[in-house]
Amino acid sequence: RSHPSSLHIQDPASQRLTWNKPPLNVLVIRKVRDEGLLEPFKELCRFLVEEKKLMVYVEKKVVEDGALVADEMFSSVRKQLCTFREGFDDISDCIDLIICLGGDGTLLYASSLFQGSVPPVMAFHLGSLGFLTPFKFESYKTEVDKVFEGNAAIVLRSRLKVKVVKGLFQRTKQLSKPEENGTGPQNHISPETAKITLQLQVLNEVVVDRGPSSYLSNVDLYLDGRLITSVQGDGVIVSTPTGSTAYAAAAGASMIHPNVPAIMVTPICPHSLSFRPIVVPAGVELMITLSPDARNTAWVSFDGRKRQEIQHGDSIKITTSCYPVPSLCCHDLVYDWFDSLAQCLHWNVRKKQTRLTDASDTSDTEN
Amino acid sequence: RSHPSSLHIQDPASQRLTWNKPPLNVLVIRKVRDEGLLEPFKELCRFLVEEKKLMVYVEKKVVEDGALVADEMFSSVRKQLCTFREGFDDISDCIDLIICLGGDGTLLYASSLFQGSVPPVMAFHLGSLGFLTPFKFESYKTEVDKVFEGNAAIVLRSRLKVKVVKGLFQRTKQLSKPEENGTGPQNHISPETAKITLQLQVLNEVVVDRGPSSYLSNVDLYLDGRLITSVQGDGVIVSTPTGSTAYAAAAGASMIHPNVPAIMVTPICPHSLSFRPIVVPAGVELMITLSPDARNTAWVSFDGRKRQEIQHGDSIKITTSCYPVPSLCCHDLVYDWFDSLAQCLHWNVRKKQTRLTDASDTSDTEN
Amino acid sequence: RSHPSSLHIQDPASQRLTWNKPPLNVLVIRKVRDEGLLEPFKELCRFLVEEKKLMVYVEKKVVEDGALVADEMFSSVRKQLCTFREGFDDISDCIDLIICLGGDGTLLYASSLFQGSVPPVMAFHLGSLGFLTPFKFESYKTEVDKVFEGNAAIVLRSRLKVKVVKGLFQRTKQLSKPEENGTGPQNHISPETAKITLQLQVLNEVVVDRGPSSYLSNVDLYLDGRLITSVQGDGVIVSTPTGSTAYAAAAGASMIHPNVPAIMVTPICPHSLSFRPIVVPAGVELMITLSPDARNTAWVSFDGRKRQEIQHGDSIKITTSCYPVPSLCCHDLVYDWFDSLAQCLHWNVRKKQTRLTDASDTSDTEN
Amino acid sequence: RSHPSSLHIQDPASQRLTWNKPPLNVLVIRKVRDEGLLEPFKELCRFLVEEKKLMVYVEKKVVEDGALVADEMFSSVRKQLCTFREGFDDISDCIDLIICLGGDGTLLYASSLFQGSVPPVMAFHLGSLGFLTPFKFESYKTEVDKVFEGNAAIVLRSRLKVKVVKGLFQRTKQLSKPEENGTGPQNHISPETAKITLQLQVLNEVVVDRGPSSYLSNVDLYLDGRLITSVQGDGVIVSTPTGSTAYAAAAGASMIHPNVPAIMVTPICPHSLSFRPIVVPAGVELMITLSPDARNTAWVSFDGRKRQEIQHGDSIKITTSCYPVPSLCCHDLVYDWFDSLAQCLHWNVRKKQTRLTDASDTSDTEN
Repeated sequence: RSHPSSLHIQDPASQRLTWNKPPLNVLVIRKVRDEGLLEPFKELCRFLVEEKKLMVYVEKKVVEDGALVADEMFSSVRKQLCTFREGFDDISDCIDLIICLGGDGTLLYASSLFQGSVPPVMAFHLGSLGFLTPFKFESYKTEVDKVFEGNAAIVLRSRLKVKVVKGLFQRTKQLSKPEENGTGPQNHISPETAKITLQLQVLNEVVVDRGPSSYLSNVDLYLDGRLITSVQGDGVIVSTPTGSTAYAAAAGASMIHPNVPAIMVTPICPHSLSFRPIVVPAGVELMITLSPDARNTAWVSFDGRKRQEIQHGDSIKITTSCYPVPSLCCHDLVYDWFDSLAQCLHWNVRKKQTRLTDASDTSDTEN
Repeated sequence: RSHPSSLHIQDPASQRLTWNKPPLNVLVIRKVRDEGLLEPFKELCRFLVEEKKLMVYVEKKVVEDGALVADEMFSSVRKQLCTFREGFDDISDCIDLIICLGGDGTLLYASSLFQGSVPPVMAFHLGSLGFLTPFKFESYKTEVDKVFEGNAAIVLRSRLKVKVVKGLFQRTKQLSKPEENGTGPQNHISPETAKITLQLQVLNEVVVDRGPSSYLSNVDLYLDGRLITSVQGDGVIVSTPTGSTAYAAAAGASMIHPNVPAIMVTPICPHSLSFRPIVVPAGVELMITLSPDARNTAWVSFDGRKRQEIQHGDSIKITTSCYPVPSLCCHDLVYDWFDSLAQCLHWNVRKKQTRLTDASDTSDTEN
Repeated sequence: RSHPSSLHIQDPASQRLTWNKPPLNVLVIRKVRDEGLLEPFKELCRFLVEEKKLMVYVEKKVVEDGALVADEMFSSVRKQLCTFREGFDDISDCIDLIICLGGDGTLLYASSLFQGSVPPVMAFHLGSLGFLTPFKFESYKTEVDKVFEGNAAIVLRSRLKVKVVKGLFQRTKQLSKPEENGTGPQNHISPETAKITLQLQVLNEVVVDRGPSSYLSNVDLYLDGRLITSVQGDGVIVSTPTGSTAYAAAAGASMIHPNVPAIMVTPICPHSLSFRPIVVPAGVELMITLSPDARNTAWVSFDGRKRQEIQHGDSIKITTSCYPVPSLCCHDLVYDWFDSLAQCLHWNVRKKQTRLTDASDTSDTEN
Repeated sequence: RSHPSSLHIQDPASQRLTWNKPPLNVLVIRKVRDEGLLEPFKELCRFLVEEKKLMVYVEKKVVEDGALVADEMFSSVRKQLCTFREGFDDISDCIDLIICLGGDGTLLYASSLFQGSVPPVMAFHLGSLGFLTPFKFESYKTEVDKVFEGNAAIVLRSRLKVKVVKGLFQRTKQLSKPEENGTGPQNHISPETAKITLQLQVLNEVVVDRGPSSYLSNVDLYLDGRLITSVQGDGVIVSTPTGSTAYAAAAGASMIHPNVPAIMVTPICPHSLSFRPIVVPAGVELMITLSPDARNTAWVSFDGRKRQEIQHGDSIKITTSCYPVPSLCCHDLVYDWFDSLAQCLHWNVRKKQTRLTDASDTSDTEN
């Protein structure tokens, strides 16, 4: 017998967070410009500092917020907070746990602070449930205690590693067979001119669109060095499974559970009626460039940030990051995801009724 | 100057029901097999007979219902009801108003009773709002009085006239230009063998599908005698605007307001990714036949009734009927339709949130 | 008997162009910046001027094109051309026929020149068939002669009349019933501050989108003065049936035959999964405003032109224009439309195959 | 530091077939009822038997085909073929390589013959490329030689393991949290009454639909023992990534590369507008039952075969099989898949054009 053996598939429900030693340093992130979060933020900090005796890190501008400074009752806690400035102080190596307070944006922001390995994240919503914020703040003490005990369910949310390369990229003519394309398109870039201008991790998606132009965008999509297809339309979204319920869902994608190791490619209003979204395996390298015949430039953004223009010759390289975001579940992977689909997207929420309504309900005289 | 003059478009909101003489004969239709409707039905009949002094028509089997017969309190009203049997007694010429009690099926059934001109229909829902049953039963006396006063808003729901022809239809080869196809495909049918086996009016849709077969169906679609396209898939739906919110919506159609004079053609799970639904003008003649290379027969049904098999050589001819269903509005054409979209289909019902969630909510340091 | 009589539906295939007197003044429009069109343009002008003895109108900048001026062979024809300047000279009253040469954009441009009544348009494509350019240039002489003879098939393509009103529009709170809303929202606008800043006719669509913002747009949609729904997403498209095969198709709309008197409303990447496109009757008045809680402005464009920002308090009013574009068919309304669907959108173009592929093809041993 | 380490993702392009010892026993499968395959089949058998000196297995009924028996030139080869009967002779342990000749159905059939471990499959198409049949027959000798040499690219196509359990399943009321549901729904089934009536492996999909009923089906979907949602509509498809380009694509699914370890759940014409397809991780256990309030039974089929009725109390259990189908690539995993998308589904095949056609192409006077 000579054929391949059977598959071994890991049980996705079995991921659990265990602590080698008790967590000591906690980063607290709160949504800014939302006054409703002020009291919960203070309450949480007091709990972590005074009751749990932890080192609490908070961004400098948050601590210097006028309303916070003015509150004398909070000043003793405030003095014990460690502060840092985004872009100046690197705390990525000294945090054991991140606690987010607010909407999904806080988790995207937490992700942006940790370009390498990411500590576990525990995210609370205050108003309505978010995709990324499963915990209710009402019972925060109990929830935090449970997480500290260990054995909490966790989902490793994959991220995308993205590079923007400014250089003289030359297009490959068409979908090429492997034997025709030994070295890939890399050799089309003159090494002395190419340079990486941006490299970062995204948790939801990379969006390439037509920006303010009213012409449709025209970009080429490469997979592992070969031209796969061209996208003519409003643009294209390359997303993680986590991102499949965000902008990609609006553009028509299927929803992918965060535990599926995959990358989703979704066209935005494609000119071609047959251009469906596709799902490719995690680990492939995607590349996006302007098509040679594109009349206009395109624009790219990363989790909604760092929006910038893409010119002929530039390329955007995207692959699965080695550094996922370990995101704590409120209940477990299955419940949390389906609950957020129903509550955030009204997925399959409906009135019960017989669609194939027919006249026979009132009649016995079928023929 | 020699070019066509301007368009004159009727205001769709202006249709109103006026009575030449007071309505006298009222047909009451109730959903059978739903015991919750028994009391409302008796209450309504008593009101119409004793207070409004009307001739009330009810189907014989409804009047002979055991629970109704057993109710001695109702017997005086019951004796005054005029009864008829579907398929035996023709009441289509003597009814001034139809009142429906129950779900959308009652209106489809009412439609099936009137193959020619249809009296105005006033439809009550008891539980939840239906597309075709806008009136709440709670205030039925007031509502009926308002309709009798005249000037109620009305929508003329177009129907489709359908014929099933058994005969030796021969396929036209492809989309033909008008000059190549003077006489149309009618001359391909040997007149001595063709015969119309069914002719009826539908209010929602004609569905052609693969029936119990697990092979996909393969049918040809003709418009005004010319082959337009072939449908490979689970089947095809030809619907009125009224039907666009029923099965066609589930199959991916856009929703069409009942006042648009149009016919909708919607493929069911088409094999071709680019096969979108289309909307053609009311008044065209559509025809559906098995494709010459179809391996299996197809099945057709009409508003969910009279399901039957379609063989090679048979054809289904569909056009806009001259006899719409005048359907009374509870508020008006605009409000009723959008209200039913929201309540029956959850159309655009959503949680408010920023989809393009981004990390900048927590950050001032955009670059 | 007191109920409404039957419907009378006009045969959409019967529209024909007849001339009261022979056409004399012809406007020729060519796509600029396309050198391949130079020779066909000269050939056509020579034919119209010298053989058909017509008055030919051409835009001044087209006649002053360097390549045209340099051609001495063409100078005798060139001297006989009547010229005009867009925005300065009004020729809308003196043209009997428009001939377009190039892509769909030429017909959109022709439409923009005639804000009132539009002469019949005959549109030639040179490369591949367009939705709006059915005639092949190869046989232009024969085709022009046929049109001059009269009795050519014609489709009246409806347009939208659009007004942008800058003023202090105040939002109505929710979908209101007619009795609650006698006078409509017009009275919410302070008349002294409101002013119409733009009024024009569009042939394809009005697009409202988020422009360069990375936040989703948030606009309210009114129908006949009542708030129907809010659109959260990339934007919304209000299109004619002609426009249903353009941007609206990319955004997921069903395709509507140009002879259906309707207006299509299509959301662009809506945040709500259940927000399907809708089709409302021609003649209703739609209005779009920023939602009160919109964080950003929106942008509007008209057939891809005159892109501008929309602020809180502004409103865009859209209804069916009285002035359609009479567009000459190459074959007829049915053939031309389905041919362009297949050729421009690959509508239902597919490989024949059994989708429900099953294992039984190789087996007789079903159980 | 205490948080989870980084992900290690295998390169999906690296799977290669290597032989421990040279393949000796080859099973040849051909599509029956297709006379065009007779000559290629004979040619292939002669090559394998006489040139490659292999043991060739063929189904008995194929060898007894009249046309084959009648060919005296083939009789020497025919005598050397090993025959077996489906359902009687088990050859699943003695085959080193399967060669398929015909459409995708031959590979589905091959899959059905091997309910445990499956030998590598090399599939040839004769007419047009199939999703599962990448090799052209024209160059079969070269292709077979290359595979025998070893190092051919291979894709492990995951299968689903399906059980039909007839028993007294009782519904869980709603999406339950893990802590409320310790033992799962298994304990709802009385063990003395439940019995597995069917257990098999599918390569494309399990389809549950409404069968010949014109009422919509109403089934419950469980994931890892918990009720996730109910499906009201024409039915539901549970498919492998391989099956995502088959029936699921017609029902609106995104297309999943066969290397993604996932299961796709796609509703068929769901009554709910917001019911999008979802992708869950390989390895979860799905279960489908009739909903308690279902008025009708449902029907289930497996890769289009063994269609049967599902009653109240029955359940269908589906999980990822341990036995994938190792399917040889013609070029490689990337090229083969995108090539089949383009050729079989016309994925993103389109005419190049500017969708956002605008009037400015003919005008310099933008305002």
